[in-house]
Amino acid sequence: MTIEFFYDIASSYSYLAATQVDGVGERVGREVVWRPFLLGAVFKATGNQSPAMIAAKGSWMGTDLAQWAEHYEVPFTFNPNFPPNSLRVQRVLASVAANEGQDALRELSMAVYRAHWGDASYDATTEDGFRQALAGTSFDPAELWARAGDPAVKELLKESTNEAIERGAFGAPTFFVGDDMYWGNDRLSLLEAIYARDV
Amino acid sequence: MTIEFFYDIASSYSYLAATQVDGVGERVGREVVWRPFLLGAVFKATGNQSPAMIAAKGSWMGTDLAQWAEHYEVPFTFNPNFPPNSLRVQRVLASVAANEGQDALRELSMAVYRAHWGDASYDATTEDGFRQALAGTSFDPAELWARAGDPAVKELLKESTNEAIERGAFGAPTFFVGDDMYWGNDRLSLLEAIYARDV
Repeated sequence: MTIEFFYDIASSYSYLAATQVDGVGERVGREVVWRPFLLGAVFKATGNQSPAMIAAKGSWMGTDLAQWAEHYEVPFTFNPNFPPNSLRVQRVLASVAANEGQDALRELSMAVYRAHWGDASYDATTEDGFRQALAGTSFDPAELWARAGDPAVKELLKESTNEAIERGAFGAPTFFVGDDMYWGNDRLSLLEAIYARDV
Repeated sequence: MTIEFFYDIASSYSYLAATQVDGVGERVGREVVWRPFLLGAVFKATGNQSPAMIAAKGSWMGTDLAQWAEHYEVPFTFNPNFPPNSLRVQRVLASVAANEGQDALRELSMAVYRAHWGDASYDATTEDGFRQALAGTSFDPAELWARAGDPAVKELLKESTNEAIERGAFGAPTFFVGDDMYWGNDRLSLLEAIYARDV
C-alpha cells in the first residue's frame, strides 16, 4: 500500500514535508506517490483557511517553521510573497505527474520548493520565478508553463483536488495510506510510528 | 528553565499532552509547571476557534485523537458533551495551583481528564460530573467546587489566561520554554528533540 502525498507549492508546511516524506516511505517500506492539488480550492470547499490568517497563529508560525527546518536540517525562509498564487504551477505539476511520472515530478517540485521556501528571494509561482527556479535543471520552463493553459491539464488538477476533498482533506500537506488520512507535516512522525509496526 | 504547560480540561489534545508532558520534562531535564487557563477566552481574544468547528477537520479529529491515544497507550473517548463549559473547573484548578501546589494540581487535573476524555461517559466539567470524577480521591469536590465562586479565584484564572494571550497563545495545549512557544500536543516531540540537545 502506498503513501499518497497531497501538496501545494503555496504551502510552507508542505515544503517541509516534501523534504522528509520519501525518507518516511523508505523507512516504513511503502512507495510514496506525490499528488499535486490546489490548496486554495480545498480551503474554499471546506470553509478552512490558512493558519496565517489568525494573527497570533501567523506570528508563531514563523518560529515554528524555522524550528522544523532546523530539526530537519533543511534551508527555510518564509517567502514574503504570501500567499502566492500557485494555480499555474500546480497545473504544471499535475501535467508532469500524468505525463512524465513521479521521478520528474519530484525533481521539478523540489526545484520550485527550494526556490520558493528555501531561498525565498523571489516568488517561484510567477512565470519569471518559475523560469528562474528551473535554471540549471533539464526542464524547459517555457514549454511547461504553456501547459497550464491546456483545458485537459486544468481538468487534471481539478480532479486531484476534488478527489482529495471527497476523501476528507481540508488542508496541506495531506497524506493518505488507503483510507487513513493524516494532516500536517507534524503527522509524519506519527504516520511513521504507526506504519513502522508493519515493517 | 521550566516548561510551562497551559491547558484546559475542555481541550482533548491538552488531555493527550497532559499524559506525556511530565515524561518529556524528565527526559530533557526540565521541571514542568502546569498552568490552567481558559481556552474559550483565548479563542475569543485571538479570533481563533476549535478545530472541530470546520466540519472536515472535526471528522478527521476523531481518528487523529484515537491514533495519538493508541500511540501514547492511554485511554481516549471523544466526549459527546462538546464543547463542555470548563469555566468553573478551570477556576478550581487555578485555585489549587496557587494554594495546594503542583502535585495536587496534577492529581486533580488528571482525575478530571481521565473521567472526561478517558472514560467520557459523562461531562466532568459539571458539578455532578466533577464530584463523580473525584470519587476515590482524597479531594473534597464540594469544597473545591465552591471555590469557583470566589472573586479572587476568578481573578487567578483571568490572570493566567491573559498572561498566555499576551505571550502569544492562541490555542491549547501551549507550552513555553522561556519565550519560546510551542502549540499543540503534536509539538511535544519537536520540543523534546530541540531541548534534548541540552541534556
